[in-house]
Formats: sequence, structure tokens, C-alpha cells
Amino acid sequence: MAYKALLFDVFGTVVDWRASIIAEGQAFGHSRGLKVDWATFADGWRAKYQPAMERVRDGQTGWVKLDDLHRQNLDELLEEMAITGLTDKEIEDWNKVWHRLNPWSDTVEGLTRLKTKFILATLSNGNVALIVNMAKYASLPWDVVLGAEVTGHYKPQPEAYLRTVQFLDLAPKDCLMVAAHNSDLVAAGSCGLGTAFVSRPREHGSGQTADKEAENNYNYVALDFLDLADQLGC
Amino acid sequence: MAYKALLFDVFGTVVDWRASIIAEGQAFGHSRGLKVDWATFADGWRAKYQPAMERVRDGQTGWVKLDDLHRQNLDELLEEMAITGLTDKEIEDWNKVWHRLNPWSDTVEGLTRLKTKFILATLSNGNVALIVNMAKYASLPWDVVLGAEVTGHYKPQPEAYLRTVQFLDLAPKDCLMVAAHNSDLVAAGSCGLGTAFVSRPREHGSGQTADKEAENNYNYVALDFLDLADQLGC
Repeated sequence: MAYKALLFDVFGTVVDWRASIIAEGQAFGHSRGLKVDWATFADGWRAKYQPAMERVRDGQTGWVKLDDLHRQNLDELLEEMAITGLTDKEIEDWNKVWHRLNPWSDTVEGLTRLKTKFILATLSNGNVALIVNMAKYASLPWDVVLGAEVTGHYKPQPEAYLRTVQFLDLAPKDCLMVAAHNSDLVAAGSCGLGTAFVSRPREHGSGQTADKEAENNYNYVALDFLDLADQLGC
Repeated sequence: MAYKALLFDVFGTVVDWRASIIAEGQAFGHSRGLKVDWATFADGWRAKYQPAMERVRDGQTGWVKLDDLHRQNLDELLEEMAITGLTDKEIEDWNKVWHRLNPWSDTVEGLTRLKTKFILATLSNGNVALIVNMAKYASLPWDVVLGAEVTGHYKPQPEAYLRTVQFLDLAPKDCLMVAAHNSDLVAAGSCGLGTAFVSRPREHGSGQTADKEAENNYNYVALDFLDLADQLGC
């Protein structure tokens, strides 16, 4: 099967959002004398992610880009965790922590190898500015930023996958979805894309239970991006 | 003025479409024994470009991506120039010559320098697949592909500029439009973007008359991308 493009989930698959947010939180908390459990903070923020997108998916609201959903969720979380005294500028800067996430240790080398043979596209629920700023911050060598905002649909809606493929003027079978999440790959596979599971068993920290391994029959199952590059002959 | 992103016109500004098409035409004509004036062919094809987009801009037709406009124009041109005997596959491959255009000699080095300091986005009328394939072919290091297809508007419609800026979550004044065409820069400037004219006096061959120089007061006027990188401190 000769794939032409690799389509990447980003949060968790490419970057370690949880450890990045905890680290930035600890530094900020220290400088401001805030007593916050930053792991709880990171997990709490992420827990609001799917429900927020679901309000867009089911039509309760029109299109809202992820930066704005993150901000709504952050405002709720700050109140729930009784974190007070931040200026609006500080809260807005905090919201942009999603633009400053660190890659996994194999990410940049793996993508750089994969780029020699394939078009590398993002197929993330992150909006364009978020993904572009993150790429500049973390040196991620994308060829093109696609996914939710340009398709107007959040994964796992089929339009997010199919319109991304259409922008590339490819058939679904020419594209390989790369993700660390079984649900993402199941949705991509249902749309006719190839599927590659990359293990990120510490995405949710040491107590992770979901997505520790491939739960279905995918085209590729890889330990990390270097292993995927090996398997794809890059 | 601290710009955050450079937005590039592509055909003519970044790549030498005319010489690329002539060269590929001559090689193809030679291999097939076709007697065609390939400069006339290239100019004739490009002459149909603005009128075709105008039918989209003025609402005569819904959205048609540039690859498809190029194909309609190519079919007309082949008939007008009485070029016959090509298979549909050959015609389709010919249509994709726009995905295989060569950069000007300063392009890749200039973009690579500019990329160290700015987000590099395309703001072309080319569709996403065309720009992505061209980037792979010509090693153009874009951070993100925006412009006509993702905004649903062909330049010089203001939406093409303003929605591209919006995807980057920037203000127009944070963005510098880079183009070899006065009309493009006038339209971008009207939308509040900064403007940089880069001279491409041979885009239309040795007899070029239009766009040989900057006809307005732009923020930057550069001889080529290396000069622009010098002026922008990259």
C-alpha cells in the first residue's frame, strides 16, 4: 500500500500536552506563590475538551475554534479550583500554553525522517494558529496544516477526515492516519484511511489506563515515530 | 513595525511558472514530435487565468478550485492551438505542470532565512494540493498553506486576505504581503496588511512590460528574497 500523505493527530500523539502544562504551571505557580496541584489542573482542563467540542458537533452552537473552547474551559476551571487574582492578560497567556507544548523525544527526528517520503499534514482538532505557533515553538516540520478549523468539523466527525483528504486531492486510501488514540483511528478507518497506532502510554501520566495499546487491527502499530519511520522505510 | 507572518503570492513571486512550463513543453513536444510554440502556449494558458477566476468571483459559478480552472482553460487552449492526439491521462498530467514549477534562484535560500524569524504562509490563488505538491517538488519551506481554497475567495477579493490573517489569529498589521504584482499589494494594503514588492522582471519573459517595478509606496521594495531577508534582518 503506497501512502502519499501521513495525517497526524497532534495532542498526545506528537506533543506531551500534560507534562508541558504541568511544568509551565509549576513555574508560574512558584513565581506567583500559587498553591495549585498542576496535574489536577491539566487533567481538569483536558476533561472539559470533549464535552466542549461535543456542543459544536451536535449543533448546540455554531463553529467555535479550539482556542476559544480552551478559554471557556479555562475560565470554568479557574473558578472550580478557586484560582484567583490573575489578570485577563495572564489568563489569555495561560490559554495559549497549548501553543507551547513540548514534543515527545522521538517526534522531531521521526517527523523529519518521515517527511523525506510523505506529505506530513496535521489532522488535529487544534485551530490553525494553535498548530502553526506550536510548530514554530517545537520545530515540527509540517507540510500543511489541515483538520478541524479548515474543514469546519471536529474529529471524530467523518467530514474532518474526508475534507482533509479532499484538500490534498487524494483518495482516503492514499492517506495514513497516525494517532495514539484508538477512537481516532477507528473513525479514520471507517472513512477509508489507513491507520497507524503510535503508543504514548504516558500521555495521561503514570496512571494511564486508556489507549495503552492498539485495540484493533491497524495497518501499522509502532512504539514511536522512529519505529514508524523504520516500518515505512524512511 | 514588528511583523509576525509573511504572506506570499506564489505564481511569479516564488516560482518561475513561465520558464517551467516552456521547458516541460519543449521536452514533451520533442518526445512526441509536436510542433508547438511553447512560449505562446504558456502565455495563452496564463491569459485565461484571471477571466476564469472572475467567473467565480462574480458568482457566475460556485467555488471551483484552481486545478479545475486550469483544466478547463487547458482544454480550450489545446483546441485553439490545434494540439491533438493527447490521451486524457496525458492532458491531466499536463494540467499538473503547475504542481512542478521551479523556484527562482534566490527563493529557497531566501525563504529559509526568512523562516527563522517569521511564520511563512502562502496566500496564493492555487489550491491546497497544488501548493503542497509544488512545495515538495521545489523544497519550499512553508509553515502553513492558506489563501484561496481555505478562504473560499480568489484574490484580490478582500476575504482572501482577511480570512487568511484570521486563520493565523493575527491582525492585518501583523502580516506582510510579499508579491511581485502591484495589484496584489494594493489589495492587501487596502485590507491593512503591510506590503513588500519583490521584483520579478522576467516573469513574463524578456518582453515584460507590467510589474517591472513598484508603482506605489510599499513598506518594502526588494530586488529578490535575499534582499528582503537582509532588509528584514534575517
